[in-house]
Amino acid sequence: MKQSIKPRPDLKKLEEGILKGDRVILGQAITLIESNLDTDQTAASVLLERILPFTGNSIRIGITGVPGVGKSTFIESFGKYITGQGKTLAVLTIDPTSPLTKGSILGDKTRMEVLSKDPRAFIRPTASSLTMGGVANKTREALLLCEAAGFNVIIVETVGVGQSEISVKNMVDFFLLLALAGAGDELQGMKKGILEIADALLVTKSDGDNIKASREAQAMYQQSFHVLPEQPSGWRPVALTSSALTGEGIEEVWKMISNFSRLVKESGYFAQNRNHQTISWFREYFKLLMESDLQKSKTVQLKRENLEQELVRLSIPPQEAARQLLDVYHQAIRESAT
Amino acid sequence: MKQSIKPRPDLKKLEEGILKGDRVILGQAITLIESNLDTDQTAASVLLERILPFTGNSIRIGITGVPGVGKSTFIESFGKYITGQGKTLAVLTIDPTSPLTKGSILGDKTRMEVLSKDPRAFIRPTASSLTMGGVANKTREALLLCEAAGFNVIIVETVGVGQSEISVKNMVDFFLLLALAGAGDELQGMKKGILEIADALLVTKSDGDNIKASREAQAMYQQSFHVLPEQPSGWRPVALTSSALTGEGIEEVWKMISNFSRLVKESGYFAQNRNHQTISWFREYFKLLMESDLQKSKTVQLKRENLEQELVRLSIPPQEAARQLLDVYHQAIRESAT
Repeated sequence: MKQSIKPRPDLKKLEEGILKGDRVILGQAITLIESNLDTDQTAASVLLERILPFTGNSIRIGITGVPGVGKSTFIESFGKYITGQGKTLAVLTIDPTSPLTKGSILGDKTRMEVLSKDPRAFIRPTASSLTMGGVANKTREALLLCEAAGFNVIIVETVGVGQSEISVKNMVDFFLLLALAGAGDELQGMKKGILEIADALLVTKSDGDNIKASREAQAMYQQSFHVLPEQPSGWRPVALTSSALTGEGIEEVWKMISNFSRLVKESGYFAQNRNHQTISWFREYFKLLMESDLQKSKTVQLKRENLEQELVRLSIPPQEAARQLLDVYHQAIRESAT
Repeated sequence: MKQSIKPRPDLKKLEEGILKGDRVILGQAITLIESNLDTDQTAASVLLERILPFTGNSIRIGITGVPGVGKSTFIESFGKYITGQGKTLAVLTIDPTSPLTKGSILGDKTRMEVLSKDPRAFIRPTASSLTMGGVANKTREALLLCEAAGFNVIIVETVGVGQSEISVKNMVDFFLLLALAGAGDELQGMKKGILEIADALLVTKSDGDNIKASREAQAMYQQSFHVLPEQPSGWRPVALTSSALTGEGIEEVWKMISNFSRLVKESGYFAQNRNHQTISWFREYFKLLMESDLQKSKTVQLKRENLEQELVRLSIPPQEAARQLLDVYHQAIRESAT
């Protein structure tokens, strides 16, 4: 462990570097917020508070899909298109199924070979915090750092098989779901409700022999969207096809997102949604803090385990069990004060 | 207010009456659990604890759909079919859109005219508690009372436009969604994700000129089910049609539910799901208790409001805001002890 010789992070330098758009310093700052050391967390908290006024000025796009759907390939083409328009792009990738290792960082960099050499692009895998209920909160903070560094577009990529999609949906303006044409079970293995939180679905690999099947899948998804309730944004989700090979559909995705962005900014939904997201992150953090607060007390944990056993044996009603647990929790807080 | 002259509930009499299946006493017991008086709540808690060992022996069916879909008409036909098989049936209805009044009780009774005269059936509107976050917890307790009274089948009916569907899904074994044939927007206005929690969808009013459209809607819903992920029960949701007029499809619904019930009992999912539901009610109650505990303290409430304003102004990060709120909450608990 190198912790003892680790120097205190120079917050002033980090802050200035981020605001100047220095990528090396941005990378260091993301590493700092990902650290689980208490001293680093305190520093990260101060840093976030300082850069917060400079956040909010990007379009945030969430992209998800099962492994093999072609997320990296799509992000390569899509990202090149975006930087080709003169915009800067940050790509944050979350892989909740594998812990963050040097190997996976290299893996990710090579996955987007062209984009990773693009001076207008910044690619970074982010750790999904295991300590805080698996929620991708560190990713949200990395997103804020990228915004403060001045990126115009931020893509958050996640594998659509875990628990991170809802968190990602709740940190982006537009949520894009990728799917393959197939035998009707394309979303098999994805989290329930994934279609309902998507602003658009893109059928990938629509080229060669696969074009017909892709168009059919597109039509089927469009119909599925049709039976879903209207989105709070008023936006009607769209199903599209694309091919990273032929470049088909790439420009359309960007046009669609720009169109969406214009519409929701005009309607006021854009700002309203971001405020709503911020408050909900706060509530989520608070719930997680309360949960870890409950877990800190052995007495509370023991009581909870006992109550759950009694509940399954039908020897106590849930409401009474909840009351007893709250009493024990209060007691634990009072005792911790003395 | 008649509270001062209200006699203490005779718990022994209530308990014995319920276990004997006395409907008048069952009705009184449901009124007791619905009462918001502190003394009644304490009594209700004791009563629930006593009858709990006698619960669990019914098939619990949740039924939902938008107003006008024909829920009452379907339950009339379906209920008559069930009692015709020699089984007893309790129907609990929740209408979260209107407060519980004498008028709505009468309204409900007349809505199911035939069934309400059936000696094997018991129909009862239940209050959705407004104090506890609008969750239909009183309905769940009424369901337990009905089980202790020996009913073989319990139907919980709710309007699919509010927040009660998830609660209902979480108290039943089988969740049936009713829909009308229409222009593709049939589920418009329903809660998001409703299709994904349904074990079956029934297209109602499939008679006369409407048969063709109903069959088409059935096929469309069957396809929508197809793209959804597999249910944890392993059950593949089914789309059916029915007509309360011609009686078509009524028997099929019962056969499907019996089939489902047999399958999940064999696989062990039935018991596992009920345990899971009990634990999740407990956790839900506990969350609500914590929430009302937070609201009891004015200091905590004020702090929360201030923090939310700061959050929207981007002057504090969510994680830091959560930490500050927890500190204030702890302080409030300690002070309440002294």
